[in-house]
Amino acid sequence: MGIKTLNVNEDILNANDVLAENLKARFSQSRVFVMNLMSSPGAGKTSIILRIIESLADKYKVGVIEGDIASDVDSRKIAETGVDVLQVNTKGACHLDANMILSATDSLGIDGKQLLIIENVGNLVCPAEFRLGEDIKVMILSIPEGHDKPLKYPLMFTESDALILNKIDLLPYTDFDMDELCKTVKAMNPAIQIFSVSAKTGEGSERFTAWLEERIAGK
Amino acid sequence: MGIKTLNVNEDILNANDVLAENLKARFSQSRVFVMNLMSSPGAGKTSIILRIIESLADKYKVGVIEGDIASDVDSRKIAETGVDVLQVNTKGACHLDANMILSATDSLGIDGKQLLIIENVGNLVCPAEFRLGEDIKVMILSIPEGHDKPLKYPLMFTESDALILNKIDLLPYTDFDMDELCKTVKAMNPAIQIFSVSAKTGEGSERFTAWLEERIAGK
Repeated sequence: MGIKTLNVNEDILNANDVLAENLKARFSQSRVFVMNLMSSPGAGKTSIILRIIESLADKYKVGVIEGDIASDVDSRKIAETGVDVLQVNTKGACHLDANMILSATDSLGIDGKQLLIIENVGNLVCPAEFRLGEDIKVMILSIPEGHDKPLKYPLMFTESDALILNKIDLLPYTDFDMDELCKTVKAMNPAIQIFSVSAKTGEGSERFTAWLEERIAGK
Repeated sequence: MGIKTLNVNEDILNANDVLAENLKARFSQSRVFVMNLMSSPGAGKTSIILRIIESLADKYKVGVIEGDIASDVDSRKIAETGVDVLQVNTKGACHLDANMILSATDSLGIDGKQLLIIENVGNLVCPAEFRLGEDIKVMILSIPEGHDKPLKYPLMFTESDALILNKIDLLPYTDFDMDELCKTVKAMNPAIQIFSVSAKTGEGSERFTAWLEERIAGK
C-alpha cells in the first residue's frame, strides 16, 4: 500500500477554479462586467466603490457584493446610494471564494445589471489566490501602507489588472516614494495600470472610472 | 460504514495548539518573554519594533523573528540595530504557526535572551487564530485604517492584550474617531490596554515600552 497524500490547499484551489469557470460563464451570459476589488483593511475599498457609483450609476445598472468577516458596516454605506448591495459574512474566513459568490449572485440577482463590484475581505494575501469568475482584479494600496509592500505581498501585485494608489491627500505627511513604488510594481507586472487617487477629495477618481468604463463597454 | 468527516481547519488549529504549548514550556524554561506582534500590512510593526529596541535593548537581550510572505526588507532594518534577527518566509501562507516558530527558535537561539519579539505576517485575520506560545499578543491599528475596524475584524481585537494606535501624527488629516474606537474596543475586550503612538515621531512610544518592561520584569 503506497503513501496517500492529501494536498488540502491544492484541492481547495482546484475546486475553486472549477466553480470560478462556472461563474464566469454565468456572468458572460448575463452580460455583466465583474470587478474583484482587493486591499488591506482600511485602504479604502468602500470609499472607492462609492466614487465609482457616483460616476457610473447613472449610466450603468450596478450591483455590489460586500465581503466581510463580520458586520454590515460597509453594505449600509452602499445601500444609502440606492444601489443593490448584498453583504456576505465569511464568519472568520480571510477571503471570498467562488462558492460564496455563486450563492451571493443568486441572492443579489444579476440579470439586467451591467457592473457587479465584489468587495473582497480586507487582506493583501489570500484573496489573490481565489478566482471569483471576475473580468478584472483591481487592488488598492493606500499611501500610509508604504512603498515596500509589493516585495512583501507579491502575488496580489502580479495578479491585479489595475492598482489604485489611494489616499494621495496624505502624501505630504509620509515618506512614500512614488517613483520607487511604480518602478517595483511595473517590474513585477508590466501590464498593470496604476491610478493615483484620493477617494476622500475625489482627486484622480475620474481617470480610474473612465478606464473602468472602457472595460465595461468592451465586454 | 459511517460517514467520515475531515474538519481540516479544526485539526490544523488543534495540532497548532499542541505545538504552541511545547513552545510556551520552552520559552518558560529559557526565561524569555515573548510578544506576538500583529497588524494589517503597513500599520507599522517594524517601526514599533525599532522603537522597542531603542528603549529596551540596552537593558535586555532582545531577539526578533520576522514573518513575511516573501522578502527580507524588514529583517535588514532590524539587523542594522545590531539585534539578533531571523527572517521566516512563509512562501504564501498568510500567518505564522507554532511549527514555524519552533524551527525559527532553533535557528535564532533563545538562551540568554530576555525578550523575543515575533513580527507576524501583515494580516488582520488569520494570525489571531494561531497561538505561538507567546506571553502576550499585541496588535497595531494605524490611524489611516479607520475606527470601524474592530467590528469588521473582531477576533484580533478580542485576542490581543494590548492595542497600539499607531500613526497618531496623521490624526489631523483623517476623520478617525478616537472616542468611538476606544468605546468599541473596550466593549469587546474590557481588559485590553490601549496606547496612542507615533512610531515616526516617537510620541507615546515610551508609555508602551514602560508597560512592556513591567510585563517582562513580571515573568
